[in-house]
Amino acid sequence: MAITVGVIGTGAIGADHARRITQTLTGAEVIALTDVNLEQAETVKNTLKLNATVYADGHELIANSGVDAVLVTSWGATHEEYVLAAIKAGKYVFCEKPLATTAQGCQNIVDAEMAAGKRLVQVGFMRPYDSGYKMLKQAIDSGEIGTPLMIHAAHRNQSVGKNYNTPMAIHDTLIHELDVFRWLLDDEYVSTQVVFPRKTTFAHDQLADPQIVLLETKKGVRIDVEVFVNCQYGYDIQCAVVGEQGIANLPEPQAITMRKNAQLGNALLTDWKDRFIDSYDVELQDFFDGISANKLTGPSSWNGLAAAIASDACVTAQQSGQIEKINLPERPELYR
Amino acid sequence: MAITVGVIGTGAIGADHARRITQTLTGAEVIALTDVNLEQAETVKNTLKLNATVYADGHELIANSGVDAVLVTSWGATHEEYVLAAIKAGKYVFCEKPLATTAQGCQNIVDAEMAAGKRLVQVGFMRPYDSGYKMLKQAIDSGEIGTPLMIHAAHRNQSVGKNYNTPMAIHDTLIHELDVFRWLLDDEYVSTQVVFPRKTTFAHDQLADPQIVLLETKKGVRIDVEVFVNCQYGYDIQCAVVGEQGIANLPEPQAITMRKNAQLGNALLTDWKDRFIDSYDVELQDFFDGISANKLTGPSSWNGLAAAIASDACVTAQQSGQIEKINLPERPELYR
Amino acid sequence: MAITVGVIGTGAIGADHARRITQTLTGAEVIALTDVNLEQAETVKNTLKLNATVYADGHELIANSGVDAVLVTSWGATHEEYVLAAIKAGKYVFCEKPLATTAQGCQNIVDAEMAAGKRLVQVGFMRPYDSGYKMLKQAIDSGEIGTPLMIHAAHRNQSVGKNYNTPMAIHDTLIHELDVFRWLLDDEYVSTQVVFPRKTTFAHDQLADPQIVLLETKKGVRIDVEVFVNCQYGYDIQCAVVGEQGIANLPEPQAITMRKNAQLGNALLTDWKDRFIDSYDVELQDFFDGISANKLTGPSSWNGLAAAIASDACVTAQQSGQIEKINLPERPELYR
Amino acid sequence: MAITVGVIGTGAIGADHARRITQTLTGAEVIALTDVNLEQAETVKNTLKLNATVYADGHELIANSGVDAVLVTSWGATHEEYVLAAIKAGKYVFCEKPLATTAQGCQNIVDAEMAAGKRLVQVGFMRPYDSGYKMLKQAIDSGEIGTPLMIHAAHRNQSVGKNYNTPMAIHDTLIHELDVFRWLLDDEYVSTQVVFPRKTTFAHDQLADPQIVLLETKKGVRIDVEVFVNCQYGYDIQCAVVGEQGIANLPEPQAITMRKNAQLGNALLTDWKDRFIDSYDVELQDFFDGISANKLTGPSSWNGLAAAIASDACVTAQQSGQIEKINLPERPELYR
Ligand SMILES: [Mg+2]
Ligand SMILES: [Mg+2]
Ligand SMILES: [Mg+2]
Ligand SMILES: [Mg+2]
Repeated sequence: MAITVGVIGTGAIGADHARRITQTLTGAEVIALTDVNLEQAETVKNTLKLNATVYADGHELIANSGVDAVLVTSWGATHEEYVLAAIKAGKYVFCEKPLATTAQGCQNIVDAEMAAGKRLVQVGFMRPYDSGYKMLKQAIDSGEIGTPLMIHAAHRNQSVGKNYNTPMAIHDTLIHELDVFRWLLDDEYVSTQVVFPRKTTFAHDQLADPQIVLLETKKGVRIDVEVFVNCQYGYDIQCAVVGEQGIANLPEPQAITMRKNAQLGNALLTDWKDRFIDSYDVELQDFFDGISANKLTGPSSWNGLAAAIASDACVTAQQSGQIEKINLPERPELYR
Repeated sequence: MAITVGVIGTGAIGADHARRITQTLTGAEVIALTDVNLEQAETVKNTLKLNATVYADGHELIANSGVDAVLVTSWGATHEEYVLAAIKAGKYVFCEKPLATTAQGCQNIVDAEMAAGKRLVQVGFMRPYDSGYKMLKQAIDSGEIGTPLMIHAAHRNQSVGKNYNTPMAIHDTLIHELDVFRWLLDDEYVSTQVVFPRKTTFAHDQLADPQIVLLETKKGVRIDVEVFVNCQYGYDIQCAVVGEQGIANLPEPQAITMRKNAQLGNALLTDWKDRFIDSYDVELQDFFDGISANKLTGPSSWNGLAAAIASDACVTAQQSGQIEKINLPERPELYR
Repeated sequence: MAITVGVIGTGAIGADHARRITQTLTGAEVIALTDVNLEQAETVKNTLKLNATVYADGHELIANSGVDAVLVTSWGATHEEYVLAAIKAGKYVFCEKPLATTAQGCQNIVDAEMAAGKRLVQVGFMRPYDSGYKMLKQAIDSGEIGTPLMIHAAHRNQSVGKNYNTPMAIHDTLIHELDVFRWLLDDEYVSTQVVFPRKTTFAHDQLADPQIVLLETKKGVRIDVEVFVNCQYGYDIQCAVVGEQGIANLPEPQAITMRKNAQLGNALLTDWKDRFIDSYDVELQDFFDGISANKLTGPSSWNGLAAAIASDACVTAQQSGQIEKINLPERPELYR
Repeated sequence: MAITVGVIGTGAIGADHARRITQTLTGAEVIALTDVNLEQAETVKNTLKLNATVYADGHELIANSGVDAVLVTSWGATHEEYVLAAIKAGKYVFCEKPLATTAQGCQNIVDAEMAAGKRLVQVGFMRPYDSGYKMLKQAIDSGEIGTPLMIHAAHRNQSVGKNYNTPMAIHDTLIHELDVFRWLLDDEYVSTQVVFPRKTTFAHDQLADPQIVLLETKKGVRIDVEVFVNCQYGYDIQCAVVGEQGIANLPEPQAITMRKNAQLGNALLTDWKDRFIDSYDVELQDFFDGISANKLTGPSSWNGLAAAIASDACVTAQQSGQIEKINLPERPELYR
């Protein structure tokens, strides 16, 4: 019996997830769709030859008793509302980033889920599903490098558009690191500081680029992350974990080493979509496998809340130039 | 409508393919099983909770009208017989290596398939489905390194058992290279020579190890392959293609670079199963996708024949110490 | 005509420089020696078969009219006094780190040298003579990576003795980075901050280890340096310069890449002496070549002063936990 | 007392060695020069400000009693004559490649040296003085990779001039490998075979390029060397030694790893002069140190003979297409 899925929001990412479910993953089937642009929902339905109904809006879709699980891939500002509705309906829900646009919104979801008494929500943080990060996590957990003391990381994009401003370096870019470090280290943040190096001439007026974010965790791990979204040379994710007895590095993406034109080297990625493409398949399959096992284990609404609180503190730190506290509430039993 | 699959031979590889079809791939379902040991077929059926029938033998299984496609994963000596039966029944058949134990056997299959007038057979050569080899193929075909002139390659195993003898270095080990180079270069072999370096003290009496196989192609490409099956240090597949303007190397498997114990480096694989694990999924999915499209494009019975003829010549060269011709018949239209 | 050299202090480094001058370098000859332990000076004289006089102390040695140039390799606390005496005598002087034990001492030397009206002093900062740093400097100056915006660096030792305490991480270890970044960037520091990650269990009571030092330059470059002197795994110097258009990394020391024991990798150095061994030859040869050309171009007493002022600020920052200003006086014409 | 040196042949390499002796090395001084073009000898004398006499020819130079040691850097065809004269005069002589243009010429030199009863000749094979090859030799000798079984090597030039023909790939290019493998393995060749891959379109008519030379040693080691002198992409020397328990690779030249323009990599050398530049200093210093110790240990006239015999066999193999024997006489006691 395939899990029946309703997709709320059939833009780029929603359409892609629908394709994924239909053509690549096992055990799930898209039977319901909706979008603010209903024509687009129809187009996705037809393109993928889905045996699916197009609903007038997300609430109708969620209300339909034939829908087992919901994918929220609509505009970010609507996420909270649909996730809450799905929880209320007792349905599993996969929500793309951000879980909600405010920490309070995330808290509302956490509260609702706790009231429901079981995990129903998975957030679309895909890095824990990336084969490289999984190897890195395993290297840490194996004890091979000893207790982690520091992380040196970088998140670099070739360039960004004119609408991308300074806080977005946190909310849209660093957010992935904020989630993945907690997972790698099994730890929580306690403070953050942001420093601004000399600004690249390739950045627009509204954007201080690059930035260096300095995080401190409960266990005392110090993390520095360079966020550089106009680095020109490629899309590049770096993560080195320094332990008491050694250092482990996130693997580079697979590439052909070539000797050519007086150079020895390999091509770097330039498009972020190529970097984690495989992990989207794995994260969504894991969501469906979790439903089948009646136990979700992927990124939870608690992860969404923790990332939101840390993000907010980082943006405050951008503005204050000071070290800012990150106050995460006690983690409830449900999320341990 | 899922493609209904019958599996002939439920040993290690057959059971693994059955699991793959059931749990990982899309569009196919195992509904029939058989094995020389019927109890084992029952065990696989139960372990995977298959809604499947266990047949007395492969011919009964093939004869069943509910079976759309056949997997031949039985003992090598039985492959030819079952593949021919499947062709006769007009059914798609995926056959593990070897397609047949003799070149004549492969020719019989090619003849039968040509008589059938369409491709029905895919051989279990998985390397063209490996992400690294695909990148290498793409690098060659893009023209980035110019016309290929040479390949330097190595196939190394940590160690082999006492039953592994000198000809097996060709039939069981080099066979993968013999297939994959033809595909990489879009070329055919014309001669082979085998030289025996100083023998490692880690090899048994019946085995000359290492060996270097020198191949020449129609287009004049020269290939040297080191086959070293007791190399002690790991399972290691190397392939460097030297073109007129540059060199492209098969990527190393993904690994964590670590600094530890006065060493900078990464772990190597030691088990061949880990090296191409992902490509087994891809090859079999491609088989089913080919069936759905009514057009197989993976390794054909012609590939099986070409590898068999080249293998036989290499074994002759092992024994003669001479350069031996490799005579492949003209490739029929069906396989172009 | 060889330059005649007097060596003040014939301990490990002094004896090694005497050997270097005698056996490896060209154009100079050791003709005078002294040490607090005169027997040791005699031993060096005899071991190297020098045609040299052993003097009662450094001042007598400097006063001898036959001595063209002086090497100060005595105990750190005596450096200032001997360098000042050499300047007063109008003689070229090469002084090992530190130039003086206080910033004021360095300033006294700068003042004396300026009064002399010409550069007479070279300080023993050897990294600008390292082939790897020279390549890195060239990569920056070529413009290949665009304007430098950030440096990510690390200075790691396998372990340190019980007498090594927290400020020594600056004065004895970071001092090399403090000098070399100024040279790489052609820039001056304006502020520093030190953060302390979780302490490694391998560090003694008197030492906070690791530390991260954050430097800011006049041009706005932000530098983070991990100083980790009980890292266990080796002696490791890392330096990545992030520019507007690319990143350049300090090369790893030359090493044999090996495949062995299921590992692909190379040995790391464990002793700091091996890392910059060649650059000691080059720095000292450059000193003598400078004398021959009557124009010293190596690390100057101004460099010594700049490093001392920055070091003091870093130690203050260790204690205050605050961002501390680094106030370097205007650079005099003589040192531009 | 500096060793007094006479240089026969002041073309590019002779002038460079004269500069080296004068400006870089210790313990030797050029006091005599000659060249077929006497003006050029004068120019070198003046450029380097040598206190030297220009002689009418090499024999006069050798005869001068003030000359301790001779450098033969004249046209190859004259090497034998001058080396024999130097031996006759009882003088140490450093001779650039080739020691003689024929194996018989080398044998004549060996015979003369044996008659003299001591080693007087060093041949200009510089690779054993390269820091990378020294590390490789040490890795082999340490036993870390076990008994060597195979070498995979390559000698690639970006391009060659129109006068470079097929046998020169042996005499001028492979000659370096022929010497260095003997030294690495402490072994002698017994056979050779040459195969010609598809010819690159970048090679001229008189040149079959690339070539693969297959060597066999007494101990059974098998060596394959790709010689590719129009590889377009750079000057590249590769050498991987496969032992019973591991593989050791010749290090790549030191280089800056850069991330730029969607590429991760480093520059390759394009000019052979840059690859072994340092080893020229070391080889010549070793020659003078050997003279001082009255015991030469560098590449001997026996090495010159062995390389000549192997070269001749390789050229025969180029022409015959067969496996050709390499017959080296028993090595005399003097050269063990
Ligand atoms: Mg996602
Ligand atoms: Mg297979
Ligand atoms: Mg020094
Ligand atoms: Mg030479």
